[in-house]
Amino acid sequence: MNNKKIVVVGGVAGGASAAARARRLDEFADITMFEKGPNVSFSNCSLPYHLSGLIPDADSIVLMTPDQFKNQYNIDAEINSEVINANVSKKEVEVKNTQTGELKCVPYDELILSPGANPIMPGCIKGIDHDNVFSVRNVVDIKKIHTYLEVNKVTDVAIVGGGFIGLEVCENLAQTDKHVSLVEASEHVMGTIDDDFAELIHKELYDHGVNVILNDGLAEITDDHIKLGSGNKIKAQVVIMAIGVKPDVALASKIGCKLGLTGGIAVDQHYQTSIPNIYAVGDAIEVSHMITRKKTRLALAFPAQMEARDAIDHIYGRTIENRGVIGSQAIHVFDINIASTGLTESECQKDGIDYRTATVIPKSRVGIMPDATPLYLKLIFGYPNGEVLGAQALGKSDVDKQIDIVSTMISMHGHISDLTHLEVCYSPWFSTAKNAVDMAALVAENILNGEFKQVQVSEIRKLVEKNAFIIDAREPFEYEEGHITTAVNIPLSQFRQRLDEIPNDCPVYVHCLSGQRSYNMVRALNNRGYKNVINISGSYLELCEYEYFKDQTTDRKPIVTNYRFDLL
Amino acid sequence: MNNKKIVVVGGVAGGASAAARARRLDEFADITMFEKGPNVSFSNCSLPYHLSGLIPDADSIVLMTPDQFKNQYNIDAEINSEVINANVSKKEVEVKNTQTGELKCVPYDELILSPGANPIMPGCIKGIDHDNVFSVRNVVDIKKIHTYLEVNKVTDVAIVGGGFIGLEVCENLAQTDKHVSLVEASEHVMGTIDDDFAELIHKELYDHGVNVILNDGLAEITDDHIKLGSGNKIKAQVVIMAIGVKPDVALASKIGCKLGLTGGIAVDQHYQTSIPNIYAVGDAIEVSHMITRKKTRLALAFPAQMEARDAIDHIYGRTIENRGVIGSQAIHVFDINIASTGLTESECQKDGIDYRTATVIPKSRVGIMPDATPLYLKLIFGYPNGEVLGAQALGKSDVDKQIDIVSTMISMHGHISDLTHLEVCYSPWFSTAKNAVDMAALVAENILNGEFKQVQVSEIRKLVEKNAFIIDAREPFEYEEGHITTAVNIPLSQFRQRLDEIPNDCPVYVHCLSGQRSYNMVRALNNRGYKNVINISGSYLELCEYEYFKDQTTDRKPIVTNYRFDLL
Repeated sequence: MNNKKIVVVGGVAGGASAAARARRLDEFADITMFEKGPNVSFSNCSLPYHLSGLIPDADSIVLMTPDQFKNQYNIDAEINSEVINANVSKKEVEVKNTQTGELKCVPYDELILSPGANPIMPGCIKGIDHDNVFSVRNVVDIKKIHTYLEVNKVTDVAIVGGGFIGLEVCENLAQTDKHVSLVEASEHVMGTIDDDFAELIHKELYDHGVNVILNDGLAEITDDHIKLGSGNKIKAQVVIMAIGVKPDVALASKIGCKLGLTGGIAVDQHYQTSIPNIYAVGDAIEVSHMITRKKTRLALAFPAQMEARDAIDHIYGRTIENRGVIGSQAIHVFDINIASTGLTESECQKDGIDYRTATVIPKSRVGIMPDATPLYLKLIFGYPNGEVLGAQALGKSDVDKQIDIVSTMISMHGHISDLTHLEVCYSPWFSTAKNAVDMAALVAENILNGEFKQVQVSEIRKLVEKNAFIIDAREPFEYEEGHITTAVNIPLSQFRQRLDEIPNDCPVYVHCLSGQRSYNMVRALNNRGYKNVINISGSYLELCEYEYFKDQTTDRKPIVTNYRFDLL
Repeated sequence: MNNKKIVVVGGVAGGASAAARARRLDEFADITMFEKGPNVSFSNCSLPYHLSGLIPDADSIVLMTPDQFKNQYNIDAEINSEVINANVSKKEVEVKNTQTGELKCVPYDELILSPGANPIMPGCIKGIDHDNVFSVRNVVDIKKIHTYLEVNKVTDVAIVGGGFIGLEVCENLAQTDKHVSLVEASEHVMGTIDDDFAELIHKELYDHGVNVILNDGLAEITDDHIKLGSGNKIKAQVVIMAIGVKPDVALASKIGCKLGLTGGIAVDQHYQTSIPNIYAVGDAIEVSHMITRKKTRLALAFPAQMEARDAIDHIYGRTIENRGVIGSQAIHVFDINIASTGLTESECQKDGIDYRTATVIPKSRVGIMPDATPLYLKLIFGYPNGEVLGAQALGKSDVDKQIDIVSTMISMHGHISDLTHLEVCYSPWFSTAKNAVDMAALVAENILNGEFKQVQVSEIRKLVEKNAFIIDAREPFEYEEGHITTAVNIPLSQFRQRLDEIPNDCPVYVHCLSGQRSYNMVRALNNRGYKNVINISGSYLELCEYEYFKDQTTDRKPIVTNYRFDLL
């Protein structure tokens, strides 16, 4: 029997994983990996960190050279080699050397497409083809940006798009001496989290000197500024485009692979395309969402690797199981970490999924330990069945841990009752005795049981404007340091003696610092026969974070007398 | 209807949680909490951190005062009040004021026992009643130790027992100017993890100047030294006993509550004792293990809180679900973190549970990022069914995250195949693209499938002694820096050209730095028809950590030419 010929298109996350897995299963296969760029196996997620110098040597981002692939895995990794076509009946690919233009045909038994995704560069925008406009896809890109910034002594950079790449580039450039503007066309950065937590990121960006522009899009690029849809001009000698990526389906389309409704390459449960012996994995494909069961796309390194492994396993006759994706993600922005998994509130709304949320703000570790900081956690769960649908977490500490607990639970189709039965590890060094996820799950259980009502901090401004009855349940000294303008201070420690101040003929909203004391007051008032008492979820801590950025950047009137930021 | 009278015995984790939960469910109950010590609601797990000054004010360890309980929750928290008896037919408790000796009877409708556990102080040891002998149970204890050390200008402390409290006290005292000896009667510290990882803790202790004594017990205490079972004497003006705790069942026994086989108070699925209207929770009770289904005891704060909540919920007619415990725990010792969940290897062996392990040592984050350190993770899973049984993790980074992912999976009765389908969040800031748990699960899956064989680092000394054929698959420069004395250097990058050096008529053991390159070589050699190729799990990194402490503290001959410690 002849050796199996495996050809892989693309040499980064999906491609390199596929080639290495094939070698482990088959020592005698002929494995060739074609990469159109000059590098294989680089850590694309690490690229932004070169801009701040955190990763001083851009070449170190390349994790394996073609020589190493050859020597260690006996894999031919051919760089500067673009697969431009395939003859699927003859089962061979046509490869072009991007430096010499030379063409060659290479036969395959199995072809794995892992072409990735390309940054979206809208051709309609005037100036987008200027040489001061960049995107961030590979090591070459990041070197080019780095060099251009240095050579041209650039002082002002505009980043267009507030997703993962935009935010990471923003953070890393702001840590140099550049003045950075971040332009986001929608209401908030990071589409993968909801408005409430995104406001906390806006504040973080603002606090670090980033010029954050929301609800405004790029209209035109010149040598020294950009013009926005609003007509505003922003000084910028360099523009970095990060408005998103589109799957690179050029080759797949050309050779006749079917595309899915989302524009990605359509694959079956084994990552096979519509053409026999051709598989596709990674950012270019369409995948199924584990929760919504809908087709979606997910441009992340981790799923790409696992898809690659599965595709190769299927080639070698192994049974694989395609459970779909949930979209777990994490990002570090200046001093805070943000992570999320599963569905957001807005995705639930879009998909018509009935849901509820539970937000808690415990400390990251026992409060008397040094460096205990607030940990914002929002759990999103199905109503009425309590299925865990998603979570978002934000803070200076290990928010990724909380999200990974929830993502593990989602992967097992767990319910809120499963989260309340978690037994995670505890020491004052690592967390509070009741971990954030447990705490949120207990709140969620109460909400599922209809035991109390809540509103989100996003609704407080309206309540203040219509002069709703708001109780601040904190101690007087806390109230004095800053409070909601219209709130009445009735501390949890005094309310039983001051019940006559609390009306029972109108809604009563209660908040404290993080929501714990107010929750206890809400329960007590409910027990005492108050019919319409509502907890302000997130309470003063989240409210201040939520209001701050817009208060600073618009002329509206603040609804708090003084901000309190325990994240600082 | 009269208000329900709820009496709680014990005012720390379980007791305080029970009282607070009762108030949330019933605003009108008469809730009284009796605590025999002078403080309620203190963070007992934080006590050791006062000894180093990390928590400078011991009083800050008390999280809530009786006044706060009264004002905020309308709960009567009576301190210095020991419940010494109960008349279960009259439903009243007899309470003694420990300062005045005064007695009173207090009626209850429901009685919650949360008396905790007492440090074991073997009366047979001569000198154990000296005033230089301490244990660590509450704020009074820790203040007493702190004062005694200062007043008597103590230079040498012996800590007896290498469990959680012993290690934490050891760490915190060693960070002052004291010379600390840690005496452990068994082969290794921390009974909740296995020998292999415990050796890494021995090294950490040794590196920080702790005099670690294993396999030796306390025989006698004098004013300036302790005598061990071996006859050795250790200088110590202060002795801290931390050999374990026993459930405080004095009151429960006296009033006739049945005890379980493990010596804890027996409770049913609702935490009811054998006597009607008496519940028990926390360190004093016997619980069921979720995996072994056996009765056990678990002296941890987190389960105590949850049990308290469940007991109260049951009193108020709510349905609760008792799923048993798994024993997740975490500890910080000098520069490393250690966490574990579920069963250890030795517990599996003791219980006759067939199991396998998968150990991986990825970096804590992408290797090119600063502060990427090795993360040791061992997954323990059932054979042949692949059920996830336990995990242990150790390193300078967020090992608690890895363990919480696994504990979540265990709580859902997940299998290795469920762990391989995890989708956790990734950014180079937080982890490697393939997270440690996923990596370990993939190795575990290969082991379940019988795809390769492995030995543990604990077996390497024997292999060296009998001159087994060991391949070091690292690059020559790495081999030069230090290697197993008898190993042959055949790098992964060269072995295909050097196959004639690899025998096929005897077992061939392969290692590299962390196990990844050796695994690839093992797979390739298997594919090439080698019948008996075995991967050394943990490889050089774990081997050096494993061997070091005994090499330094005994006169045996090292089996490596030079140690390599990437944890440093």
